[in-house]
Amino acid sequence: MTSADSAPGSTARTRIRRLPDNAVSDRAALDHVLDAGLVAHIAVVDDDQPYVLPVAYARRGDEVLFHGSTGSRLFRALADGQPTCLTVTLLDGLVIARSAFNSSMHYRSAMVIGVARRLTGDDELDALRVITEHLLPGRWDECRQPNAKERAATMTLALSLDECSVKIGAGDPEDEPEDVIDPVYSRIWAGTVPLTESFGTPVRAEDCLAEIGVPAYVTAWQR
Amino acid sequence: MTSADSAPGSTARTRIRRLPDNAVSDRAALDHVLDAGLVAHIAVVDDDQPYVLPVAYARRGDEVLFHGSTGSRLFRALADGQPTCLTVTLLDGLVIARSAFNSSMHYRSAMVIGVARRLTGDDELDALRVITEHLLPGRWDECRQPNAKERAATMTLALSLDECSVKIGAGDPEDEPEDVIDPVYSRIWAGTVPLTESFGTPVRAEDCLAEIGVPAYVTAWQR
Repeated sequence: MTSADSAPGSTARTRIRRLPDNAVSDRAALDHVLDAGLVAHIAVVDDDQPYVLPVAYARRGDEVLFHGSTGSRLFRALADGQPTCLTVTLLDGLVIARSAFNSSMHYRSAMVIGVARRLTGDDELDALRVITEHLLPGRWDECRQPNAKERAATMTLALSLDECSVKIGAGDPEDEPEDVIDPVYSRIWAGTVPLTESFGTPVRAEDCLAEIGVPAYVTAWQR
Repeated sequence: MTSADSAPGSTARTRIRRLPDNAVSDRAALDHVLDAGLVAHIAVVDDDQPYVLPVAYARRGDEVLFHGSTGSRLFRALADGQPTCLTVTLLDGLVIARSAFNSSMHYRSAMVIGVARRLTGDDELDALRVITEHLLPGRWDECRQPNAKERAATMTLALSLDECSVKIGAGDPEDEPEDVIDPVYSRIWAGTVPLTESFGTPVRAEDCLAEIGVPAYVTAWQR
């Protein structure tokens, strides 16, 4: 792991200043975090008030893609060139140190900043395919793809990975050396508790014919 | 469920315009989402560039609390009165409609906006207790509580729940009526796939004595 300053995508704006030891420099780690998440949080500023919105997203090569409604004032602001930030955070566990101060979490977090560009035409259709396939692998070819009305209601944006950072918190709690040998605090359990996300059994919609089985590509989704 | 406009905390700025049917109006729902999450995403704007940062947080009565480093320029901007937004999103499942457009997610999301206030003295210490107890219930009384040096390094902020919104996506996919009876698309499976977070087996830190058992309050954490 090289220093955060030499990381691809690292600029003065995305250089990690807090807990720089947790900064990760390689592009593979960025892709891994972006490809593992299902929801991102994006920022939009309106009348000096920032908003943080959850969005479905996907990575396509050197960009992250997300979509919203063409009727949304906030999304139109992004399409008009307002700078934004897209952050994906995966929570992997709790880190239980002897001290409250050193207790933390296992996490993987990626942040991408810049100005999004609005996609159109076949490029946008491909982006919608990539987002659907990221969330529901195997579904695109079977489902009804967007029609003209739905396309008109959808705004699809792409944000380049040019400016980004990745931070990963892992490993044992890092207690103060004096706490580890303290007569009282050395007697406290310290460690980590893993946190995992998993898919449950698919539930058929009420209006879906009972004779139609769960597709193999759905059964294959396991996290 | 009453309309979003009459929801407590709803203002012109937090009124839910997109998918207003998913807006939830009662305070109990807001508390439920905030109390169920472990990580929030907050917005900070620096030099016209917004950033979205993951933070540990907790609700205390009519406020959400979060902390950061006193050395962080972004946190100092919040303490200086910059408006912010704190969003908590819980992902509960995938919603698989016959159409890509109507496919979505089961989620619970709470957004709080406003100006944070910096906490000090015993009020701040109580906030640190509340955050620790939210993430690690039962831990505060056993762990080493923050010392003067750690307190000086920590900035604790509180954001009032006065302006907020809650959105919950649940239930079956809402397909277009024509897709449900379409000769092709009615033959596609539609439904939902639940997504759950769960804790794994606690892992003792390498520097923790083997004779010290996992505390009962840790074993009790189940999600």
